[in-house]
Amino acid sequence: MTEKELIKEAIEARKRTYSPYSHFGVGAAILLKDGTVIKGTNIENVSYGLSLCAERNAMFSLISQGYDYKDIVMMAVVGDTDKPISPCGACRQVLAEFLKPDTKIILANLKGDFKITNLEELLPYTFTEIENV
Amino acid sequence: MTEKELIKEAIEARKRTYSPYSHFGVGAAILLKDGTVIKGTNIENVSYGLSLCAERNAMFSLISQGYDYKDIVMMAVVGDTDKPISPCGACRQVLAEFLKPDTKIILANLKGDFKITNLEELLPYTFTEIENV
Amino acid sequence: MTEKELIKEAIEARKRTYSPYSHFGVGAAILLKDGTVIKGTNIENVSYGLSLCAERNAMFSLISQGYDYKDIVMMAVVGDTDKPISPCGACRQVLAEFLKPDTKIILANLKGDFKITNLEELLPYTFTEIENV
Amino acid sequence: MTEKELIKEAIEARKRTYSPYSHFGVGAAILLKDGTVIKGTNIENVSYGLSLCAERNAMFSLISQGYDYKDIVMMAVVGDTDKPISPCGACRQVLAEFLKPDTKIILANLKGDFKITNLEELLPYTFTEIENV
Repeated sequence: MTEKELIKEAIEARKRTYSPYSHFGVGAAILLKDGTVIKGTNIENVSYGLSLCAERNAMFSLISQGYDYKDIVMMAVVGDTDKPISPCGACRQVLAEFLKPDTKIILANLKGDFKITNLEELLPYTFTEIENV
Repeated sequence: MTEKELIKEAIEARKRTYSPYSHFGVGAAILLKDGTVIKGTNIENVSYGLSLCAERNAMFSLISQGYDYKDIVMMAVVGDTDKPISPCGACRQVLAEFLKPDTKIILANLKGDFKITNLEELLPYTFTEIENV
Repeated sequence: MTEKELIKEAIEARKRTYSPYSHFGVGAAILLKDGTVIKGTNIENVSYGLSLCAERNAMFSLISQGYDYKDIVMMAVVGDTDKPISPCGACRQVLAEFLKPDTKIILANLKGDFKITNLEELLPYTFTEIENV
Repeated sequence: MTEKELIKEAIEARKRTYSPYSHFGVGAAILLKDGTVIKGTNIENVSYGLSLCAERNAMFSLISQGYDYKDIVMMAVVGDTDKPISPCGACRQVLAEFLKPDTKIILANLKGDFKITNLEELLPYTFTEIENV
């Protein structure tokens, strides 16, 4: 599967958005080694702080469905933004728990623009250490 | 599907837990009208505040996979607790966005104890109103 | 300090709201034994899930400022709602970590309506147990 | 106030930690133009996802106490880590709502190591845009 095909899957995922408060839908799609694609979308709550972004949702859904995050090949995220969408810091932190620093992350918008990046670029000097645990 | 069968699905979901910080696995399973079961498990993060509970994960995964929350029949949650596990307040709030007040929620532990409840009991005087939106 | 005076403090706290996304300001005020009042307001983020409610903010600020949550006498919360505002489930869970089940919680709106409650009523069958910690 | 003095304030803030689950205390201190220092510490919850980091707590407490985030001069964060502590992605996102890209952020540990950085370095390609709001 190509980057552009995975973006299409993310666009499909975006249609499932539950975002009655922001009206800002986001879609994410994760490709696994065997070709499986896991979708995630953003889901909001009347108590805004309980909302979950598409990227984290795709990752959490992947694990909940019994897939192995070690099989992730690449991820795509899409929103109706001017430039390719950018993952929020919380999503970067969650992805850092599961992705390799150089796993391909494709950021896209609905106009066909995209940008290929990874966590090494998105979350430099990552917090990964808890002492005394 | 009976309540006890759905608890078994939640026990299966619990095996997928990613909880290296608390070592406290939780599983959730949601039954839809057509017999489909959606699983969710708790997933933690080195930055504890970015962890997600099993209940919310099942609900968010359901929507991300393209199912309709209006088709939910009942939900089961299970953990290795002394009494049947109790959903945290954040999960109750998220469930309140999607479940009816009387949708059956089954709380269970690994010893076979269970308790049938709903959001009317779990989240009285629910926050649902935002003015000026 | 009376309940009504604490509501006034919560109304003052509400003026500090940072809520450019919901335009829904909330204020909270906590009274300590020695008469000190700690204020909290809701603070939102462009990534909605990183928003924090007023109630949690007041509690977290209290601890950050070096006060002892064991000295809490009562708490008031206010929003521009039709009926007295209701704390979201996440706030109830956080309060349950620090308040006694019968600590007085006053819910109010801007029209002068209020309702006196506590966590026993707001968060029945509270999640407090983690095994193996 | 010098960077090293602000680190001392963060070390004081760290003593207020409520972290019975991770046993990993973090302190943060924010310096305002007029010399005021606002402290924040990490506060955890039995439902891990409701925990709040020290950095966000300092920022939210600052606003709740009625201060203006536009008056922030610099911020220090400290933990008992091998290298200077690193803020999690969620904190970086929240800070990005209020700090300028070049506001000085000092990361430190208890051994006297420190690193001076800012959001431009910590959160490149920041998510700040929501369409249709």
